[in-house]
Amino acid sequence: MSLMLDEARNAPERIRGQLQRNAGLLADLGEHLRRRPPVGAVTVARGSSDHAAGYFAYLCMKLHGIPVASLPPSLTTLSGAPWRLSGQLALAVSQSGQSPDLVATQRALAEAGAHALALVNTPESPLGAASHREVPLYAGLERSVAATKSYLATLSAMAQLLGHWQEDHRLLDALAGLPERLTRAAEADWSPAIEALEAADRLMVIGRGAGLAVAQEAALKFKETCAIQAEPFSGAEVRHGPMALIGPGYPVLVFAPPGPEQAGLLALAEWLEGVGARVLLAADEAVPRRHLTLVDAGHEALQPLAVIQSFYVMVAGLAAARGSDPDRPRHLHKVTRTL
Amino acid sequence: MSLMLDEARNAPERIRGQLQRNAGLLADLGEHLRRRPPVGAVTVARGSSDHAAGYFAYLCMKLHGIPVASLPPSLTTLSGAPWRLSGQLALAVSQSGQSPDLVATQRALAEAGAHALALVNTPESPLGAASHREVPLYAGLERSVAATKSYLATLSAMAQLLGHWQEDHRLLDALAGLPERLTRAAEADWSPAIEALEAADRLMVIGRGAGLAVAQEAALKFKETCAIQAEPFSGAEVRHGPMALIGPGYPVLVFAPPGPEQAGLLALAEWLEGVGARVLLAADEAVPRRHLTLVDAGHEALQPLAVIQSFYVMVAGLAAARGSDPDRPRHLHKVTRTL
Repeated sequence: MSLMLDEARNAPERIRGQLQRNAGLLADLGEHLRRRPPVGAVTVARGSSDHAAGYFAYLCMKLHGIPVASLPPSLTTLSGAPWRLSGQLALAVSQSGQSPDLVATQRALAEAGAHALALVNTPESPLGAASHREVPLYAGLERSVAATKSYLATLSAMAQLLGHWQEDHRLLDALAGLPERLTRAAEADWSPAIEALEAADRLMVIGRGAGLAVAQEAALKFKETCAIQAEPFSGAEVRHGPMALIGPGYPVLVFAPPGPEQAGLLALAEWLEGVGARVLLAADEAVPRRHLTLVDAGHEALQPLAVIQSFYVMVAGLAAARGSDPDRPRHLHKVTRTL
Repeated sequence: MSLMLDEARNAPERIRGQLQRNAGLLADLGEHLRRRPPVGAVTVARGSSDHAAGYFAYLCMKLHGIPVASLPPSLTTLSGAPWRLSGQLALAVSQSGQSPDLVATQRALAEAGAHALALVNTPESPLGAASHREVPLYAGLERSVAATKSYLATLSAMAQLLGHWQEDHRLLDALAGLPERLTRAAEADWSPAIEALEAADRLMVIGRGAGLAVAQEAALKFKETCAIQAEPFSGAEVRHGPMALIGPGYPVLVFAPPGPEQAGLLALAEWLEGVGARVLLAADEAVPRRHLTLVDAGHEALQPLAVIQSFYVMVAGLAAARGSDPDRPRHLHKVTRTL
């Protein structure tokens, strides 16, 4: 078994521990954010962590109505932007907490008046030291280059933070049941995707809303572990040009969990089948024409976690079926340092 | 000749007229923004216009140090986000100004306290009506489905707005010379790219800083006009996973105009060649190992316009060489309405 598959299956147990250990810290942080509501938020991250930041951004905008901007580190490291961030929350996300560009950016944002918060998996990191507060991810040591449990643990920490910030007891209750639901998601049979994609060299992954963040993560994993050129799109954006790629047999993976975005995604999947695409529709049991079954995560904001949990197990199997080693992708190292 | 090629070549003249006609309006708007400096900005756009919004976002953050967030329309149309946008600038960008999701979003942002500004090519649009102010793009009627002159005219309008806002006379002077430099860029010989990509079915386009916006636009044009699955990446982000795709002969187009990002992009191009990729390096005359020559746009902030001007002419030629009609991409219409 690959380390990736082992670590992906281990995610629910890691999240169970994380939710318990961070409860007090995040209740306290939520109270702080309610007392001094930020006028906006900025995120600082790269790779899978940046996809996780997109999940936070969408839900934070949806729940609090404040803009959330993703800040390219080069604005600080190459351009020396004159940040003015009074009243802003600066959220940095990293597995290792070591990349110098993230650390330099977070330090500059804190100096410019932002309340700097780091979500980091590795304790006592430079990124944590550059921040006012640190939320540990408790995902445990991750040895596969392809991140899985650290990504899932980032999303669950963000959901727990948002739940406490909003005092949303329905979300916090749903989080308590999340590890069990993710365990079921890891056992879902997504073998039709392995059969359909065994010989693919390019495809699209479509999501929408907070689910776009897991479409982005899935597309990156297809690249890292299978060398498939998979590109993520929102269900709306794909109509603005990318559709020109789609001809007969072109594979499209559509993530359509329950929620306000589902109707549009199901209509899109039907249209794609109509033009001959090889659609793989992932949806819940209420959708008879699904090809892949999504486990209900128990709350709308948590559906993306169940989606990516089932996906990770599938893609590790797909890599094995294609004869690739998902733990050691070409050219990549576990910790990437960029300037 | 395709409409696309004709319209791309027409962009410099259109921009010349635009810069003259908008000078008073944008000087006035710049003064307004200096008197009441926004605490942040948000952008609302799709497709090519969204890539243009990324250009504005990068430069606005670099020059003013305020965060710029891209707002997915679904937050308003599907989720009813409770926007709180006092002190924010809301910039909506659209060729037609008609898509209901953009109009509904812009209206909600204005109601939530933002100063709403629209950049629109079609006069008297619903998007303009939903905004406090409108900046016309004056690109003229665009008949090819693949946008070219309207994209370039959006970037030049943004640069002129930023020049007046910052009272940056060096930038405003450079803008006066831009049409002539773009005319030269449209004449640049990028035929090595046509030869290299005539049989390609996938590739990467790499940019950084404000230049990432034109890498995104170039990747979209490869899809629309040539059905090549081209994906854009920042020179930093590509190290976090996407590199696993790159094997011997894999095509990578690198945009490396002069500026603070150039050194890193040249180092990346060298590394890519070292692992066997088929690199097409676009750089200025000072870089001897370039494959494609970039015309100097006269100012760092304007380099992306010269890049995409040369690219558009090349990709129209590539489409013709591949036997595609760039004016009528599969499945696409000129005006896309999404909800």
